[in-house]
Amino acid sequence: MDFKERTIKSEKIFSGKIINVRVDTVELPNGNTSTREIVEHPGGVGIIPITENREVIMVRQFRKPVDEICLEIPAGKLNYGEDPYECGVRELEEETGYKAKNIQSLGHFYSTPGFTNEILHIYMATGLYKGEVKLDEDEFVETETIPLDELVDMVMNGEIRDAKSIIAILKASQLMK
Amino acid sequence: MDFKERTIKSEKIFSGKIINVRVDTVELPNGNTSTREIVEHPGGVGIIPITENREVIMVRQFRKPVDEICLEIPAGKLNYGEDPYECGVRELEEETGYKAKNIQSLGHFYSTPGFTNEILHIYMATGLYKGEVKLDEDEFVETETIPLDELVDMVMNGEIRDAKSIIAILKASQLMK
Repeated sequence: MDFKERTIKSEKIFSGKIINVRVDTVELPNGNTSTREIVEHPGGVGIIPITENREVIMVRQFRKPVDEICLEIPAGKLNYGEDPYECGVRELEEETGYKAKNIQSLGHFYSTPGFTNEILHIYMATGLYKGEVKLDEDEFVETETIPLDELVDMVMNGEIRDAKSIIAILKASQLMK
Repeated sequence: MDFKERTIKSEKIFSGKIINVRVDTVELPNGNTSTREIVEHPGGVGIIPITENREVIMVRQFRKPVDEICLEIPAGKLNYGEDPYECGVRELEEETGYKAKNIQSLGHFYSTPGFTNEILHIYMATGLYKGEVKLDEDEFVETETIPLDELVDMVMNGEIRDAKSIIAILKASQLMK
């Protein structure tokens, strides 16, 4: 069956600093019409930095939408047109103060394809060496170093709840078995 | 350090069928102000149904925001106030035609806490028996049965790109080792 939905009309609702919102009217496979509320996002990059001792440098930061301090891998938004690899290298150093000799892709995924086009690219960084922390004046992030195996337990028991961090930790653990 | 951001002003931008959008003006820990673009979502449930032969019943459906047919676990949006467990039971039968003797929580996570409050609850269903497929007239979903170990490979090589499905597959695989 052809599931594709043809766009009949597209209405711009909001144009923000980071997201845009539009409502598309679509034709369904059975000929009916429906609407789709879509959040456009430039995408982002998460990078899991793993030390020689199999420890991960994680970051804590406040996330207003969920009103909670989240434990996450270092990450940042893509600038439009920016290469995800370059963005990962930059965010790693800015947030943790480390550079990496080896950076390997762990793929990309859709955070929640029911309502946004956001793509998150995930990298694993090893061979870490000291660079320089360069947080923006308005960026508040604390680092914390935690063994990878302990992070897997924290994913399984629900202490880590950020999707990109869960995916990076479980994929890295799968690769480093 | 106290990272919390105090809300100074909250402006409603859009009130949709599924999402609402608001822009909060917040006070940062250093006293500066900034804005946060926030998508309010009722949350959802994903359920990974695993047969006696360690096979998973997956669904394919078109996702307009990413303009792609995605291979995912059965899932649905929560109605406001609905119990996630009840929602999982319902979506499992509606989309796959199966009921389950055992349904176990695999926790919940934030799909992308930088811009939305969406929480996804994940369950694992075993002891499957025949119920009845009950798709809405405007719902177009095809099922496909795939061994769990093959799905882990498809996550690792990037063929499965939906966050909730990646998380459910890797968590289930971790539990059933």
